[in-house]
Amino acid sequence: MHFASDNTAPVPPQVLEALIAANHGYAMPYGADALMGEVRDRIRHAFEAPEAEIYLVATGTAANALSLACLCPPWATVFCHRNAHIEEDECGAPEFYTGGAKLTLIDTPHARLTPGKLEKAISFTGRGGVHNVQRGVVSLTNATEAGTVYSAGEVAALCTVAKGYGLPVHMDGARFANALVRAGCTPAEMTWKAGVDVLSFGGTKNGLMGVEAVVLFDPSRAWEFELRRKRGAHLFSKHRYLSAQMAAYLRDDLWLKLAARANAAATRLSEGLAALPGARLLHPSEANSVFAEWPRAGHRRAQKAGAQYYLWPMDQTLTGPDDAPLSARMVCSWSTTDEDVDAFLRLVKGKTTERA
Amino acid sequence: MHFASDNTAPVPPQVLEALIAANHGYAMPYGADALMGEVRDRIRHAFEAPEAEIYLVATGTAANALSLACLCPPWATVFCHRNAHIEEDECGAPEFYTGGAKLTLIDTPHARLTPGKLEKAISFTGRGGVHNVQRGVVSLTNATEAGTVYSAGEVAALCTVAKGYGLPVHMDGARFANALVRAGCTPAEMTWKAGVDVLSFGGTKNGLMGVEAVVLFDPSRAWEFELRRKRGAHLFSKHRYLSAQMAAYLRDDLWLKLAARANAAATRLSEGLAALPGARLLHPSEANSVFAEWPRAGHRRAQKAGAQYYLWPMDQTLTGPDDAPLSARMVCSWSTTDEDVDAFLRLVKGKTTERA
Amino acid sequence: MHFASDNTAPVPPQVLEALIAANHGYAMPYGADALMGEVRDRIRHAFEAPEAEIYLVATGTAANALSLACLCPPWATVFCHRNAHIEEDECGAPEFYTGGAKLTLIDTPHARLTPGKLEKAISFTGRGGVHNVQRGVVSLTNATEAGTVYSAGEVAALCTVAKGYGLPVHMDGARFANALVRAGCTPAEMTWKAGVDVLSFGGTKNGLMGVEAVVLFDPSRAWEFELRRKRGAHLFSKHRYLSAQMAAYLRDDLWLKLAARANAAATRLSEGLAALPGARLLHPSEANSVFAEWPRAGHRRAQKAGAQYYLWPMDQTLTGPDDAPLSARMVCSWSTTDEDVDAFLRLVKGKTTERA
Amino acid sequence: MHFASDNTAPVPPQVLEALIAANHGYAMPYGADALMGEVRDRIRHAFEAPEAEIYLVATGTAANALSLACLCPPWATVFCHRNAHIEEDECGAPEFYTGGAKLTLIDTPHARLTPGKLEKAISFTGRGGVHNVQRGVVSLTNATEAGTVYSAGEVAALCTVAKGYGLPVHMDGARFANALVRAGCTPAEMTWKAGVDVLSFGGTKNGLMGVEAVVLFDPSRAWEFELRRKRGAHLFSKHRYLSAQMAAYLRDDLWLKLAARANAAATRLSEGLAALPGARLLHPSEANSVFAEWPRAGHRRAQKAGAQYYLWPMDQTLTGPDDAPLSARMVCSWSTTDEDVDAFLRLVKGKTTERA
Repeated sequence: MHFASDNTAPVPPQVLEALIAANHGYAMPYGADALMGEVRDRIRHAFEAPEAEIYLVATGTAANALSLACLCPPWATVFCHRNAHIEEDECGAPEFYTGGAKLTLIDTPHARLTPGKLEKAISFTGRGGVHNVQRGVVSLTNATEAGTVYSAGEVAALCTVAKGYGLPVHMDGARFANALVRAGCTPAEMTWKAGVDVLSFGGTKNGLMGVEAVVLFDPSRAWEFELRRKRGAHLFSKHRYLSAQMAAYLRDDLWLKLAARANAAATRLSEGLAALPGARLLHPSEANSVFAEWPRAGHRRAQKAGAQYYLWPMDQTLTGPDDAPLSARMVCSWSTTDEDVDAFLRLVKGKTTERA
Repeated sequence: MHFASDNTAPVPPQVLEALIAANHGYAMPYGADALMGEVRDRIRHAFEAPEAEIYLVATGTAANALSLACLCPPWATVFCHRNAHIEEDECGAPEFYTGGAKLTLIDTPHARLTPGKLEKAISFTGRGGVHNVQRGVVSLTNATEAGTVYSAGEVAALCTVAKGYGLPVHMDGARFANALVRAGCTPAEMTWKAGVDVLSFGGTKNGLMGVEAVVLFDPSRAWEFELRRKRGAHLFSKHRYLSAQMAAYLRDDLWLKLAARANAAATRLSEGLAALPGARLLHPSEANSVFAEWPRAGHRRAQKAGAQYYLWPMDQTLTGPDDAPLSARMVCSWSTTDEDVDAFLRLVKGKTTERA
Repeated sequence: MHFASDNTAPVPPQVLEALIAANHGYAMPYGADALMGEVRDRIRHAFEAPEAEIYLVATGTAANALSLACLCPPWATVFCHRNAHIEEDECGAPEFYTGGAKLTLIDTPHARLTPGKLEKAISFTGRGGVHNVQRGVVSLTNATEAGTVYSAGEVAALCTVAKGYGLPVHMDGARFANALVRAGCTPAEMTWKAGVDVLSFGGTKNGLMGVEAVVLFDPSRAWEFELRRKRGAHLFSKHRYLSAQMAAYLRDDLWLKLAARANAAATRLSEGLAALPGARLLHPSEANSVFAEWPRAGHRRAQKAGAQYYLWPMDQTLTGPDDAPLSARMVCSWSTTDEDVDAFLRLVKGKTTERA
Repeated sequence: MHFASDNTAPVPPQVLEALIAANHGYAMPYGADALMGEVRDRIRHAFEAPEAEIYLVATGTAANALSLACLCPPWATVFCHRNAHIEEDECGAPEFYTGGAKLTLIDTPHARLTPGKLEKAISFTGRGGVHNVQRGVVSLTNATEAGTVYSAGEVAALCTVAKGYGLPVHMDGARFANALVRAGCTPAEMTWKAGVDVLSFGGTKNGLMGVEAVVLFDPSRAWEFELRRKRGAHLFSKHRYLSAQMAAYLRDDLWLKLAARANAAATRLSEGLAALPGARLLHPSEANSVFAEWPRAGHRRAQKAGAQYYLWPMDQTLTGPDDAPLSARMVCSWSTTDEDVDAFLRLVKGKTTERA
């Protein structure tokens, strides 16, 4: 019953086997390994983007911060949701990599930006000319921090607003596979066809040890990206071990299969919770995260039994009236089982369990 | 016959096995995994430094740049050798991470700083008060970029100069194990007992996939380091896979055994080369690198046969008189075999090979 | 009728005369001039702060950004009002000088922070440990961007919140004199006695050509400030011309007299506007700025007659119904006369003027 | 007898009068003042550069650092002389403003770069691809830190090298007027016709209180420059006081007349010194600086009599044998008189003085 995060899970056997297979003989360093060629080909093919340039890094924060630095000058701002990972969970990495850009925070329900609110934030920015920070880049997260998903059409609508101001668009796809599986569109439809310029294509949360791809649909910034990656200390010498993982991830649609499993577990969990007395979902559960509240007694039972998840916000406490609801975040991964989910639901529900 | 770099080699089986063993069940992310506890204990024990704080990153450049950023304010300078990796091979990562510090370059033979030249460089700096960049930190590399090694006493002599000016000392130990094996002293003698404040403790070049430890002998900067690491996007969520590798590296002195193998191969290679007609070593071969020159014909034979190494400097050409010497850099790794070395020597020597 | 800004006004004769007087013979550069000694003494005396260190720069943005850089590490955040000059009017200078810190924006009426909202913002920040940007510094503006003034007691209450979290406090005093004249307390009561650590002590908006003092009540950061000032290219070689202006400003309480004149003009203006039909003040006019709205017809008359001020927000238009109110910002300076104010009021009022 | 620096001198009456004249009524801030129009026109005319964009800042370091930041990305290097002001006297301002670029230092006699040495430095840089800092910009200083002057032809030869590598060229013209007067060419010949892209056009050392113009011969970077200037806190609100000084400087060739006076004084001084027994010039005195050595007894007499200048390097001491030579730097300004020079020469010479 581990729902703390998708980054606590192990990696699937295909990934380990790919590492083992890659560990023979000598390989050229710094991305010149043969497996990187396979990765490049597979991503270009999957995204129908033969011109795209692809680079691997080891953390999602690196993928995001390097991408934003290529798209946003130091004197500009990144438009994003108030709960975006780049705002809340990266300790200022975007500010560091951009050389001091701002983040302009937009409040919308369920962590999904809306064209109207985005337009308002952009239009409000930089009206004072040289005295103000300038309009820089729009950054979307799909799936969002609230476990919701933008459809391809919703992404396109947001990109249209950005492009109306001449702004590039970055997508933080730490959970891109989960979003794609839910949205039921193609990778191309979700990204460059909708107007996305750079994608952080996540692998780590969906089953790799620590590998993310940055996909530059416009290759004109490729050399700058390479320099920023090296200068940021994110260029691996023994690069084959990143390539091997990402190649395994892409083969036979493993990435989509893993995401489908995580999403299905979250659906089972969210539907189970929603059906419990006193419980309700706080956000639609559209990818692999579930945000819900239920009575404190259910939390006590779950946590006493060792279930791992975060009360969300974290400053809530288990001490207090039994029936007062507490809210929580649960994240499913490719390795979450139906048994995990069902055992958890029994604990939350309580009486049935105790009778059994 | 792969002598291009120690970063083209595979990892030893113990490392792969540790990864496989670590891939069971759920593990707390971001360094809270149990294996990181083992790593911390083992490094503290090996360095006789129970107070030291230890952090893992994935690249040597990250280890160096983050360490320097903790030791050197933006308006100061890093004293280092002109050929230091931080100057020549990191695309300005130290400048980026420090927020714009300088590097003051010192020229000395065999990439080994001397106390006299170091003292001169430090004393010359910052004499103009606020108009000048200030004295910041001394960075030593051991083993050096020329394949030479500082003894513990030599490190201590350099640290004494630094401390005389109140400066901290960083050691780039990308090949620390190779240096230690050669110097025959303890890890503590080579570092904090000699005056080193922060060590980049290399794993990647000596058999890991991409793991380096930063050892802060003075733990007062630990929290700053953690923030800089996160902000630099070098904090791994699935941290157990870094820990597992480093733990395997430290168990049973694997790190020292791997380095001993690489050093022995380099000794065999350097002695073999030195004995050839028209050949000579350019630097004493004290760790796992060999810098030597020999007649062009020998290079032609070696490269035609597929031997991989760099002409050094790189702008030399195989075209030209047979007997004119060309200089080269060769790096041995834990996986270099006696057969590799001997085959290479036969190619360089030439006639014997042709007869055989 | 120039109410566009206090930075469009000329300087009073005492300042010019001081420049002329300073222009004799040779003077030591970079702040070693004798006049700087006088400035230091006068500020220390005025603020009852014999230990304070004082530095001159030429722009308010420099004073603010350098001060914040000394108080806030790159991985932390500056708590300030959403309309603070450092957020809205400095093109990211605080981000640049701090090396990429954030600004956390607080919304409160009349641009005056409240202890409750400040406490909430601080407590909400950094709860996620290393993943989050950390708590850095609180920055207050007095007089505020809305033309309101914190009393010494209100400053102390905010500082108490900051100190409760161990945070330093910066005061942007671009209009410090105007605030002080209004608040009726001593400079010490408004600053260090209330808990302010560093003050940007404005001169430019109150009658100098371009001189601001930074007052470090805690001199321990003085050397860092000097280095940051030089590195930021804000150390003047012919420093005597800054010193001369600031010395003249401080002699005979000129700074307070100038501010009193500006405040009196704003009071006359705000009271006159408030008495007009269809007009109302948007913020209490407590210093030298007036924020008010009145019917569009009055704006048309005023602007047609050449009155200079900003519609605020700037995207309003003079085209439209006569009686619909438009809002405006007007700033008085030491050189604003009663005649200016009265003429302006007549224009806004309209009928009287037309009759006349 | 003030030869410490040209920044210890007062400003000529024309500059004060221009300030007084500018101090009437209200003026638009931030460079929108009418006098800035005059400045722009006069510089465009003087440089035969009708497309050039011109901006004013208050310090030479600001002019240099902002210019370099527009020309050199963070991952590149500035090629300059080892004694350049940007290297030795700006406390890392270029590193700060560029976001962490390097300076590559070139050693040549008399602080004058040579095409050969420049070509060697450039060609040596960035050969390792992404691992290395890239080639960025060439920065020349004219007049140089050694008081020598590049002719227009010499500038053109250096620019040809830079352009051969696609690099832009910056000229630090803190003493541009002194160089021009000496070289006897036109401003255009010395700059854009020779290949200079951006000029720091000095005013402060040649008679202003603190005003430098940045001349962008290629206006395509103008907006970026404006944003960097604002963000660097170098945009003046009461800009008319900068404009007024620079306008006065340009009227009636005042700038050239002031420089001619300073140069003539330096010539008189250098010729006088060279004729003294035991004395010699260390660099040709081609602008307004004199670098010379003479016996210690002469230094003792001069300094005892209150002459102000720097022993150069500064760590020499007056204590020691009478006839051992000490080296010194003396700088003449527009206000240096023949009497100053002659009195100084008499002191150095000694016997005549003692007889008198």
